[in-house]
Amino acid sequence: MTSIRRCFSFTFYETNGEQGAIETITTASAMQAQAQTLRNQGKRIVLVPTMGFLHEGHLSLMRLGLAHADALVVSIFVNPTQFGPGEDLEAYPRDFDRDLALCRDEGAAVVFAPQPEEIYPAGFQTHVDLESLPKHLCGKSRPVHFRGVATVVTKLFNIVSPHMAVFGEKDFQQLTVIRRMVRDLNLPVGILGGPTFREADGLAMSSRNAYLTPAQRPAALSLIQSLHLAREMAANGETDARRIVEAATGMINAHPEARIDYVAVCNPQTLEDLTRLDGPARMFLAVRVGRARLIDNMAIN
Amino acid sequence: MTSIRRCFSFTFYETNGEQGAIETITTASAMQAQAQTLRNQGKRIVLVPTMGFLHEGHLSLMRLGLAHADALVVSIFVNPTQFGPGEDLEAYPRDFDRDLALCRDEGAAVVFAPQPEEIYPAGFQTHVDLESLPKHLCGKSRPVHFRGVATVVTKLFNIVSPHMAVFGEKDFQQLTVIRRMVRDLNLPVGILGGPTFREADGLAMSSRNAYLTPAQRPAALSLIQSLHLAREMAANGETDARRIVEAATGMINAHPEARIDYVAVCNPQTLEDLTRLDGPARMFLAVRVGRARLIDNMAIN
Repeated sequence: MTSIRRCFSFTFYETNGEQGAIETITTASAMQAQAQTLRNQGKRIVLVPTMGFLHEGHLSLMRLGLAHADALVVSIFVNPTQFGPGEDLEAYPRDFDRDLALCRDEGAAVVFAPQPEEIYPAGFQTHVDLESLPKHLCGKSRPVHFRGVATVVTKLFNIVSPHMAVFGEKDFQQLTVIRRMVRDLNLPVGILGGPTFREADGLAMSSRNAYLTPAQRPAALSLIQSLHLAREMAANGETDARRIVEAATGMINAHPEARIDYVAVCNPQTLEDLTRLDGPARMFLAVRVGRARLIDNMAIN
Repeated sequence: MTSIRRCFSFTFYETNGEQGAIETITTASAMQAQAQTLRNQGKRIVLVPTMGFLHEGHLSLMRLGLAHADALVVSIFVNPTQFGPGEDLEAYPRDFDRDLALCRDEGAAVVFAPQPEEIYPAGFQTHVDLESLPKHLCGKSRPVHFRGVATVVTKLFNIVSPHMAVFGEKDFQQLTVIRRMVRDLNLPVGILGGPTFREADGLAMSSRNAYLTPAQRPAALSLIQSLHLAREMAANGETDARRIVEAATGMINAHPEARIDYVAVCNPQTLEDLTRLDGPARMFLAVRVGRARLIDNMAIN
């Protein structure tokens, strides 16, 4: 893990003949002060929260954010409270110097990269939680995950004070949880969902794809293939959600390396399982392939 | 209950030769817009959250707030989620017109008075909760109370966007919960605690004092008397918290109308019970007298 020794630093760079500076901030108080300065200058702040080890998916969210921003802030924080016991917190891939260079190249004004003890000091005991949305899909096997996400996102919003924040649709349940939380807590932040960015073969971009071996790739690709199958079945008039789930399940289970966590067709607002496709429907998948737990989702109706 | 039909209104008044206007706002979006206008004008917003039926205790908090404010906002909202089943939500005293006049007389710029369905619309499911502070004192007999308080205060802060908010020390556990929550969630709001305002005979001001009959007054006064006794014992060198609790308990139990919920001597930061007085100590009381559940507290060391 890259340690961050500086409270903040300036890195000058040259892009397209323009010279800019990216600032790295590691304390909440310095970030709040910087956000206040930007707001006092009338600048529109857009936040892209990440856990680092940035890939093209993150960069696509940054580009989306930059189109709405005077000042793009990227947070890089591997949030311990959204990992359960036995999950991959310690193994989660990190490369801060590369991340910083990518943020600079994309035109971010600030990288906010705190250490865990800055976000969760001694005596910390406050949590933001939702009643029903976290009980579905990933929440079933990751019971504390969305409480950790909702809490850290609330904190990031209060620290960075963004006008808008961007989240990827790849983590669609997370996006749904955050939209609901923002509405419920009257958080003054607009939420923008960015489409899932895929590798050339269709695999949804994820930092956890780094865990995959070449031999595991076909099993990993069964996710996008089964989403396409589901969408095709729905387009061909299939309205029985159970039959669609069965077909997708069969396609994934054809790969012995794949271990399904869930295959579900849900209402995209409530995330409740659908039995019939008579309105908006989205398929959600979580599948373990080797050391990687892969998720993907797609509107199928 | 007074129903509020208008989205907002202006009431002109004359005080000390000056003419001002108080604005009543009932929707979150109108309040957020007004707060943004005030902030854009460089005005310092101070919020005094109340459940209405205002008394001198509230007015003292408003005066404290006004000393730090360019624009004083008073919220009046009987928050249903901080009442448990069987508590006095329906019976809670209300008098909106009188409250509005008092706020106007005190120099408030805005009264924010939403209806419950504005604060908790259909589908609402997000809560702010703390791990340990709500488990002590009032939290033992009111298990959902502080979750309701923390959630509504977070919402009020996001709606009113105050630079500072004032809470009374009479609800010391609430003040402690809010200070911790503000720190934990990085809420950009300063918290000011206002001293307990007392009636001439020493009874702590509370909207619930309206439930007391004259015959119940001596029992109600046993709270402040036992706090004074505790402070005197500590001043005279008593360091055994259990003996202080016993003496206070005896003094309250001398009144057959008084039913003790708790008598405790606690660390004022963690609210954990103390056995010995070897640092800051505060006594906390909750006693039912007739229909009223009275609370009071005092530093005794």
